[in-house]
Amino acid sequence: MCVVGTAGSVKGVTPDELREVGAAVLLANTYHLFLRPGAEVVKQLGGLHRFMGWDGPIVTDSGGFQVFSLGSGLEHGVGKQIGMFPDESSTGRRPRGQAARLVRVDSDGATFTSHIDGSRQRLTPEISIAIQEALGADVALAFDEPTSPLHDADYTRLAMERTHAWARRCLDARTRSDQALYGVVQGGAYSELREDSARFIGALPFEGVAIGGSLGRSKADMHAVLDWSMPHLPEAWPRHLLGIGEPEDLLSCAARGIDQFDCVAPTRLARHGQLYTPCGKMLITRPEFREDARVVQAGCGCYTCATGFSRGYLRHLFVANELLAYTLASLHNLRFILDLMASIRAAIRADSLAELTAEFLARYQPGMPQLAGGQ
Amino acid sequence: MCVVGTAGSVKGVTPDELREVGAAVLLANTYHLFLRPGAEVVKQLGGLHRFMGWDGPIVTDSGGFQVFSLGSGLEHGVGKQIGMFPDESSTGRRPRGQAARLVRVDSDGATFTSHIDGSRQRLTPEISIAIQEALGADVALAFDEPTSPLHDADYTRLAMERTHAWARRCLDARTRSDQALYGVVQGGAYSELREDSARFIGALPFEGVAIGGSLGRSKADMHAVLDWSMPHLPEAWPRHLLGIGEPEDLLSCAARGIDQFDCVAPTRLARHGQLYTPCGKMLITRPEFREDARVVQAGCGCYTCATGFSRGYLRHLFVANELLAYTLASLHNLRFILDLMASIRAAIRADSLAELTAEFLARYQPGMPQLAGGQ
Repeated sequence: MCVVGTAGSVKGVTPDELREVGAAVLLANTYHLFLRPGAEVVKQLGGLHRFMGWDGPIVTDSGGFQVFSLGSGLEHGVGKQIGMFPDESSTGRRPRGQAARLVRVDSDGATFTSHIDGSRQRLTPEISIAIQEALGADVALAFDEPTSPLHDADYTRLAMERTHAWARRCLDARTRSDQALYGVVQGGAYSELREDSARFIGALPFEGVAIGGSLGRSKADMHAVLDWSMPHLPEAWPRHLLGIGEPEDLLSCAARGIDQFDCVAPTRLARHGQLYTPCGKMLITRPEFREDARVVQAGCGCYTCATGFSRGYLRHLFVANELLAYTLASLHNLRFILDLMASIRAAIRADSLAELTAEFLARYQPGMPQLAGGQ
Repeated sequence: MCVVGTAGSVKGVTPDELREVGAAVLLANTYHLFLRPGAEVVKQLGGLHRFMGWDGPIVTDSGGFQVFSLGSGLEHGVGKQIGMFPDESSTGRRPRGQAARLVRVDSDGATFTSHIDGSRQRLTPEISIAIQEALGADVALAFDEPTSPLHDADYTRLAMERTHAWARRCLDARTRSDQALYGVVQGGAYSELREDSARFIGALPFEGVAIGGSLGRSKADMHAVLDWSMPHLPEAWPRHLLGIGEPEDLLSCAARGIDQFDCVAPTRLARHGQLYTPCGKMLITRPEFREDARVVQAGCGCYTCATGFSRGYLRHLFVANELLAYTLASLHNLRFILDLMASIRAAIRADSLAELTAEFLARYQPGMPQLAGGQ
């Protein structure tokens, strides 16, 4: 599980705390760092590792998802995560309307409007690779054109073919031998396209692969996309599922051969007061937690629970808008997800992933916070 | 130096980070905790130490300063810190106008309007002590009526006499033998009143003393207030100067016999991107720091500098509104101030405080951030 540090920091969490909570790999967003502070600034400041104070592995995405989510995602009001695009911004706000005008794609690349200052910007496979090489992450991703669930088969095929042509150009553009490059499989929720894309990308000299773009409109669709894609990819490649990371998804997608995930959910949910527990998400701001002296999750080893901060205290911090709320909640959610990933790895080694999944889902209530989460 | 955790947390800093940065004592505000979440909730959650996860000493103030700053402070537009009341809120906003109506003082106590929900609330010496005993800090303060520099001598005398009567009532009201109680000296910037007040408070069975209220309109006034008050206080009492804590003040007031300080400045300035350096405050958001790979202060042992986070990275975090900015900046400023306090203690023991002061002030530019701070 890559912990997401969109703009060069995991919101509200220091690198020391990340290590303490068990984080091993970070993912930073090329789109955000390209626009601010700029790849050359990061390079000047010693590259992404030095910039962020993180000496472990870092992945950068290609920028494609953010660029195209400004266009079709807004146009269609949907995204890969079933119903909405994940919002990477601090504020949770995003412009609405006139979306189609914000990004223009051609065979060479994409021109788009910066969400920060409204300037017109351009990304091509070559520019994306140059940026990612300047940032200096350990793993870079090929520049791709993700589609939304509302794109039809014809457009999805067009975008996939563009993604394939761009994949070759990314491989040609790379100059660093110390940076792995992953190809990205597209093809929406169309079986034929996903199979084609997995075969095409799997035949290129990448070091690994990411599954991107629309994963359909339901968990079943997402599982189908994986089942169509996986058999056509080289056995030895690490397989990254982009932007997915709810607990139930980690279990079901690991069972389908996914090795790596990244998701802003643990930290974003935390900032909205939603805390993972074995029973489901606990909305800590609920009035019933006002005088609750228990920790969020008994036996949890995260700093927040191990220190003994009560649910009542966390609720107070959220209600009073205290910054510490975001840190303490993020540490708990990260630990929960990273512990789950550790359990998944152990279960894979012990050939008991199905048992772990059944055991976990017997208690865990997915979706919005449940009252049951308050137990 | 008490690190201020107004509403039960030091904004953006965990207790572990506080210990790491050298914090020994915290101060929490009775007014804020009384209004939210309420003293009984804190008590129910195990008292302030358990609530905040801090097993070191904690001081609570009496609530008087906040209650009366809603009234006369707003009315006069001034406060003790020469030109403005320190603003304890997260947002930096405060209501303006109609201030005189927000608080009504009588001989028994004060009725005021909550800044949170507009409800009418009341504090008396007995209520303040009951709240502070429920919160359970190690040091409580007697309920007082601070005045502003614009109150005339007659009103300042009236408020001082009320403070004296309330001091006796606080002593009568206390029931906990495990909590120290400090008296508060008032009397504005009037020599006769300060001397009277120090004599009166100094003769009561407190365990220590705080200097409160208006300290005049200049640093010279503040020093005069201390020079008038100190000789009349028991030698053995610890002496706390409330709400003061710029570096130059720590030096000049320690020289006048002050043992304890508290001030929100290190963390508040940090959240506004103002970082202490031996040359003065550095406004880290300035464009010239964009590609500055140096740490804020070479040789500084704080997490931020020791990890090697560059000025360029910190500037980026502030510009991008990343939460980590507030944590990293606060850790630096706290370390700077706590290191200075450690130097002051060492200099007092070595009888070299004057030398330390001269040496410090030869480089340090007080006031607003200087370009020199960028060196």
